[in-house]
Amino acid sequence: MSTSTALHTDRYELTMIDAALRDGTAHRRCLFEVFARRLPGARRYGIVAGTGRLLSLIADLRFGDRELEWLRAERVVSERTLDWLADYRFSGSIDGYREGEVYFPNSPLLTVEASFAEGVLLETLALSVLNFDSAVANAATRMVTAAAGRPLAEMGSRRANEEAAIAASRAAYIAGFGATSNLEAGLRWGVPTMGTAAHAFTLLHDSEEEAFRAQVDALGPSTTLLVDTYDVQKGVETAVRVAGTELGAVRLDSGDLPVLVSEVRQQLDALGARNTKITVTNDLDEFTIAALSPSPVDSFGVGTSLVTGSGSPAASMVYKLVARRDDDSEEWTPVAKASAGKVSRGGRKSAVRRLDAAGKASAEVVRVLGSEPRERAFETRDASERGLIVPLVTDGVADERYLGADGTRAARAHRESAVAELPLGALRLSRGEPVLETILE
Amino acid sequence: MSTSTALHTDRYELTMIDAALRDGTAHRRCLFEVFARRLPGARRYGIVAGTGRLLSLIADLRFGDRELEWLRAERVVSERTLDWLADYRFSGSIDGYREGEVYFPNSPLLTVEASFAEGVLLETLALSVLNFDSAVANAATRMVTAAAGRPLAEMGSRRANEEAAIAASRAAYIAGFGATSNLEAGLRWGVPTMGTAAHAFTLLHDSEEEAFRAQVDALGPSTTLLVDTYDVQKGVETAVRVAGTELGAVRLDSGDLPVLVSEVRQQLDALGARNTKITVTNDLDEFTIAALSPSPVDSFGVGTSLVTGSGSPAASMVYKLVARRDDDSEEWTPVAKASAGKVSRGGRKSAVRRLDAAGKASAEVVRVLGSEPRERAFETRDASERGLIVPLVTDGVADERYLGADGTRAARAHRESAVAELPLGALRLSRGEPVLETILE
Repeated sequence: MSTSTALHTDRYELTMIDAALRDGTAHRRCLFEVFARRLPGARRYGIVAGTGRLLSLIADLRFGDRELEWLRAERVVSERTLDWLADYRFSGSIDGYREGEVYFPNSPLLTVEASFAEGVLLETLALSVLNFDSAVANAATRMVTAAAGRPLAEMGSRRANEEAAIAASRAAYIAGFGATSNLEAGLRWGVPTMGTAAHAFTLLHDSEEEAFRAQVDALGPSTTLLVDTYDVQKGVETAVRVAGTELGAVRLDSGDLPVLVSEVRQQLDALGARNTKITVTNDLDEFTIAALSPSPVDSFGVGTSLVTGSGSPAASMVYKLVARRDDDSEEWTPVAKASAGKVSRGGRKSAVRRLDAAGKASAEVVRVLGSEPRERAFETRDASERGLIVPLVTDGVADERYLGADGTRAARAHRESAVAELPLGALRLSRGEPVLETILE
Repeated sequence: MSTSTALHTDRYELTMIDAALRDGTAHRRCLFEVFARRLPGARRYGIVAGTGRLLSLIADLRFGDRELEWLRAERVVSERTLDWLADYRFSGSIDGYREGEVYFPNSPLLTVEASFAEGVLLETLALSVLNFDSAVANAATRMVTAAAGRPLAEMGSRRANEEAAIAASRAAYIAGFGATSNLEAGLRWGVPTMGTAAHAFTLLHDSEEEAFRAQVDALGPSTTLLVDTYDVQKGVETAVRVAGTELGAVRLDSGDLPVLVSEVRQQLDALGARNTKITVTNDLDEFTIAALSPSPVDSFGVGTSLVTGSGSPAASMVYKLVARRDDDSEEWTPVAKASAGKVSRGGRKSAVRRLDAAGKASAEVVRVLGSEPRERAFETRDASERGLIVPLVTDGVADERYLGADGTRAARAHRESAVAELPLGALRLSRGEPVLETILE
């Protein structure tokens, strides 16, 4: 596997740099913006995820011999461009929404200020990271709402590309999941990991009882036993007999869950295993989780629907050139594709969440700053506004608070407070309009 | 980024190994099988993709210090298990469908024969690779059908995780796409790459004409000019004026395509640019591609819908223990979860595609071999059958023909011949039943 993401890039980015180096426009100062024109799945709000991963990938983006030799052999760009790529280090600045922040259509999620060449090179990488991670976070935050305080674990690695799986674990954690089955997500991002045994472990043994005994011997009675390989009722009985009434939990991965869960709860209680929890993992999504709310389920494990964005597997974010500086000017010239809609998106923007007297969010306000200095993007007008944009990278140096496992935990905390600020309508699972209007001032 | 996939693994795989090493069952010989119970999206057939990638990842799977130290610190498994993991190399054998092969529900796509511990460790990795890559191939093969011979390029990297994007490029190429925008897919897998410029390049310049001139200066008149940044009609006129009538192609990325494409074709012809091609890239999927079949489109670029499986972003494949050998036996004991359905899946299987006199496929036949030797899985009964299962890994050594760029090209060729063998009903885009019945003998 490659350890450079330099070529995780669409070919047209390099051919544009090649042509722009040739005619001198490559060095024009540019503002690129990441935003979403809509919330896929007709959801009420979105959650930004991927930022911390992206900042690290940008900081590490280098063209090594492997990449340069291949580009030369394939004649993708000229020698001059190869020289420029060999020296590439992102030296621009990036402002944007914190990871874990709530967003809406046209929220200016990321603003990249750099030369055209430095900025355009990031297009594919930025969108790959943000579109996938946010798609998972957008699904996950709804599942967290549906679970109404009961813990959720991410178990979808097997239904996502092997690297995407790790990003998905991290995004789900940011959006409020408590754990993941994926060990690499634990190592790389500090996400708590969980998991005990699959049906294969029971089938490996000569009897369910032998399998349970082996598991309890290795992991202790506080483990979670999977009780639906053969007959659930017998499985529960055997589980309590082997592990005792201090058995940690039983897991159900099949069957008619609302009925089954109630029966298992009654059986556990009758056996004296009143503290033994029930976890369910059977093809759940936010809707089936919500449907289980009256059932005595203690925790949920979610797989496929989580890592595939529960019907919306990409977050529809785009990376657009919104302003450029002409060679001899200090002013930004706003630019936009004619078909992009009526709203002018030119120039630098600030964004605030307007709060009512009770501290609840009432609007997303985006202000076009034109050629005003960068610092204005971070300002609010008064206490009725919460500023949404923070400096993420300054002159090529990322703010360390947003990186690594610490940044991931901070993003998780931020999501919780940002969602708590939303009006109740945000938590509806049905299709509908964004819960806040985005006002362009 | 990690360069080991050892922890791209669900925690329960390691805890099962831990418990099985403790009670001695870890070394029981096991058969694990990958299959899909259904074709998501109610499609007519599936395309196996990911096999070549998976075989390389399995061959390279090692637990290094980074992984072992983390597992020790987190107390995931015992010291004995850490020692076992430190020595891990897959030494088993894997048989299965060739990459690029057509498949149906219950086709035995992969059979892993190994000790329980060696085999169970591969569950997540195998499913991550096959479920994602096959989901993309399943969408891509339908788009290839819809395009009816016109070339397709994969352009969806920005809508997939940054590593998944490369796997998606490769899977689309196997399924018949001709090129990708993703440079790393070119470097790593030999997929032809393409791309010239985005709207940002036009917006960077003071005029569309200057942008076109810069691009033609750098890439020559055979380039593809993107003509819909401002006004398409003016864009086409400017493009031909700048590049001449030998302009390679114009690209349309927005608008009402059937109408627009016809207008642009007429305009190009009227300007004398009769050889200039038209490529479209506007949010396409297999249905919009099919709808454009009467239009003078020369090629298609497909993004989001391709890399997200066009509504079915994971291929529903599972990895199940289907048989084990007891410690003192040469016989396979078939095993299955009680709720898995009526069909016994126990033991080793062979699979053939039954062909009629005209060479068209008429059925998928899966034969349970029980305890017969491995070689029987590769056999056919007569010339009316095409054998589907080949040895992929023998005693830990992968067949090199399936690896790398050469393996990828071979998979692409195999898909073409396997799809050509299907009855015409396979090519219908509507929802329906698998075009061949899977017969279990």
